[in-house]
Amino acid sequence: MRAEIVAVGTELLLGQIADTNARWMSEELAGAGIDVTNHQAVGDNLERIVEALRLAASRADVVLVCGGLGPTEDDITRDAIAAFAGVPLVFHAELETMLREKFRRWSAIGAMPNSNLRQASVPEGADWIVPDRGTAPGLALRINGTRLYAVPGVPDEMREMIGGTILPELHALAGGDTIVSRILRIAGMGESAVAERLADLFSSSTNPTIAYLASMGEVKVRVTAKARSRADAEALAEPMVAEVRARLGDVVFTAEDETLEEAVLRLLGSNGRTLACAESLTGGGVGARLTAVSGASASFVGSAVVYTAEAKGRVLGVPEDVLAGGTVTEACALAMATGARDLYGVDIALALTGAAGPEPHDGAAPGTVWVAIADASGFTHARGFVSRGERDRVRRWAEQAGLDLVRRHLEGVRLPGTSLPE
Amino acid sequence: MRAEIVAVGTELLLGQIADTNARWMSEELAGAGIDVTNHQAVGDNLERIVEALRLAASRADVVLVCGGLGPTEDDITRDAIAAFAGVPLVFHAELETMLREKFRRWSAIGAMPNSNLRQASVPEGADWIVPDRGTAPGLALRINGTRLYAVPGVPDEMREMIGGTILPELHALAGGDTIVSRILRIAGMGESAVAERLADLFSSSTNPTIAYLASMGEVKVRVTAKARSRADAEALAEPMVAEVRARLGDVVFTAEDETLEEAVLRLLGSNGRTLACAESLTGGGVGARLTAVSGASASFVGSAVVYTAEAKGRVLGVPEDVLAGGTVTEACALAMATGARDLYGVDIALALTGAAGPEPHDGAAPGTVWVAIADASGFTHARGFVSRGERDRVRRWAEQAGLDLVRRHLEGVRLPGTSLPE
Repeated sequence: MRAEIVAVGTELLLGQIADTNARWMSEELAGAGIDVTNHQAVGDNLERIVEALRLAASRADVVLVCGGLGPTEDDITRDAIAAFAGVPLVFHAELETMLREKFRRWSAIGAMPNSNLRQASVPEGADWIVPDRGTAPGLALRINGTRLYAVPGVPDEMREMIGGTILPELHALAGGDTIVSRILRIAGMGESAVAERLADLFSSSTNPTIAYLASMGEVKVRVTAKARSRADAEALAEPMVAEVRARLGDVVFTAEDETLEEAVLRLLGSNGRTLACAESLTGGGVGARLTAVSGASASFVGSAVVYTAEAKGRVLGVPEDVLAGGTVTEACALAMATGARDLYGVDIALALTGAAGPEPHDGAAPGTVWVAIADASGFTHARGFVSRGERDRVRRWAEQAGLDLVRRHLEGVRLPGTSLPE
Repeated sequence: MRAEIVAVGTELLLGQIADTNARWMSEELAGAGIDVTNHQAVGDNLERIVEALRLAASRADVVLVCGGLGPTEDDITRDAIAAFAGVPLVFHAELETMLREKFRRWSAIGAMPNSNLRQASVPEGADWIVPDRGTAPGLALRINGTRLYAVPGVPDEMREMIGGTILPELHALAGGDTIVSRILRIAGMGESAVAERLADLFSSSTNPTIAYLASMGEVKVRVTAKARSRADAEALAEPMVAEVRARLGDVVFTAEDETLEEAVLRLLGSNGRTLACAESLTGGGVGARLTAVSGASASFVGSAVVYTAEAKGRVLGVPEDVLAGGTVTEACALAMATGARDLYGVDIALALTGAAGPEPHDGAAPGTVWVAIADASGFTHARGFVSRGERDRVRRWAEQAGLDLVRRHLEGVRLPGTSLPE
């Protein structure tokens, strides 16, 4: 089964946004065993959209159109699909009812603008996909043996329809081999070091295969197996997952589909422990990541963001002489951790301080980071390093190092204790 | 002059990377007054690359091919261009000398692999662009009146050639129209309401044109003007920018190239005021966004992330009876704001509380949000609303509403004061 993605939106051609939707859809389709052979992007121009659809339908079994289903006049994907199919747009009262019902529920937004009524029309003969998050219905139709789907360009609305409706449909149609991917996630080891330990597995394996993917502060090893059934594919993947784990050791923080923050929350939950943070450098980023996970409040209590030296003293009680010695120091990180532990009354506290750059900060070179933990037993541990790269990279590496320190502590990895300065 | 971008690389079709090169090139071309009408992406497949080139050359004056110029066997853009042009590849000894010289300079890399010799061949009749950073020469040729350029896919190698050689050439050829885009950013009004107020401008304008772009919690209105000089284009755009501003009023938070958090920090700086936050729902997200901006510490002091009811009392002194009335309430938001103001000793404090979902929280339906500000003069104001959508969308809308409240207060927009409950 060959698929092609057609992105619609002048903002893509003006370079105002990158087409991250095409990336996501391609990854999902590849994971479902469907080959994506072409991407196209066109502007909000009826003729060019029709031209792109004609080309895509001439060479692909499935065409996914993304964008241009909104309520404004430059949203013309509906019209273009109707023109391509040679059918009129048909107004559906039940879609109007659905739209009005949504606006009633979102009463804070006010009455439904008339422009939203455009979203109640679909090309004659097309099915629609009812939106959960947004207002734009997705579209599904067949034209001369090609399946054509249209989804909104708003990323979470697009993902909802691709993941919830379209992929299951296509996967059932494709009928064949099932692909299972297992991802091992690694914190605290670089891509080339990971690759070196797995070099022979990488070069000798065909099913399952191994691939690497480095993103900010994390390396992923993907083990992909293909078989007639999901169970067979999983059974093929499992020994390779175990082998990779054994070779890499405790830098692998998960082999499940979870983020580092989810792993930390899972360990906190299973250990019945609570966590608070003290954040300088990261400005609240660790708290934001933890609380992005539903149910975080069972273990995560809060975070004292203390961005100035004065706030570190005032809110966390970091002593004057520690502050005088510099805020990007082991002593300051440790004092922040014990301060947050006591302020929030938690079992474990994590502190993060550093110089994000581009300028040096309080005597520390850009990229300098200190992370520290303190627990209710009095145990403390700190770790310092210098991260390369720009401001957001330094912050991201600090978050990863801090969360990974909590993860290791909860998993019982032996960390050398440190003592607070007098 | 119409341009088209053809990206080559199977990694794009597998979704391993987003095509940020096409975004960058499009932005640069638009800035030089060249219309980009289509993007295509194809894999490392000779036939499909030739097909994409043929299509692009049939409808564009300029075709920019990106990627596939590297030294490995799957780098076949050179071959595809030669096949499309119907000419052989010709080996150039001076390119070999250039390559060997580079490897000599980078002695740490070791001797030049033989595979790099592929990069010394170019389609017969083509010019080449000597690379500064990398090893891959760019290519330039004319085929039936279409100008075709090929550049490497490594971003900084691509940028060097586009910016240094290709754009100056095209700009000279285009004879000069310059495109200027102005972006107005809007918080607190939905896309369709914005579009309704501007409907006649949208439909009647050809130069400048108006377009909308909605992203999470924000609507952008883009005004694009085209003229012989940058100054003329700016002069054309300006009255439309002023008209849009006048119609939309104070929901426009900027007409400059800045984010909402940058606008808030700019206003804090120019007013000489300091800010702290109290975050429940957003978990540190507001602090993280503010501190992502370099220099934030001049105005932003910190944020008390208080994710549990107990932490709200313990850290911010929210009274027992307020907590008993529910943490997602006007009273709790106001008490959090005054608590943060006093804890951090700042001029203005912003508090955010809510039910992110998917479950109701403390008696409040998913999506319920309260934001409040308190300033050093004793003024307080709160605003409640229900956001639609998933957890991260609710959090994002809360951040936007909270930051926008601070922005309005600093801009002197009259907000009705509220009093704390006894």
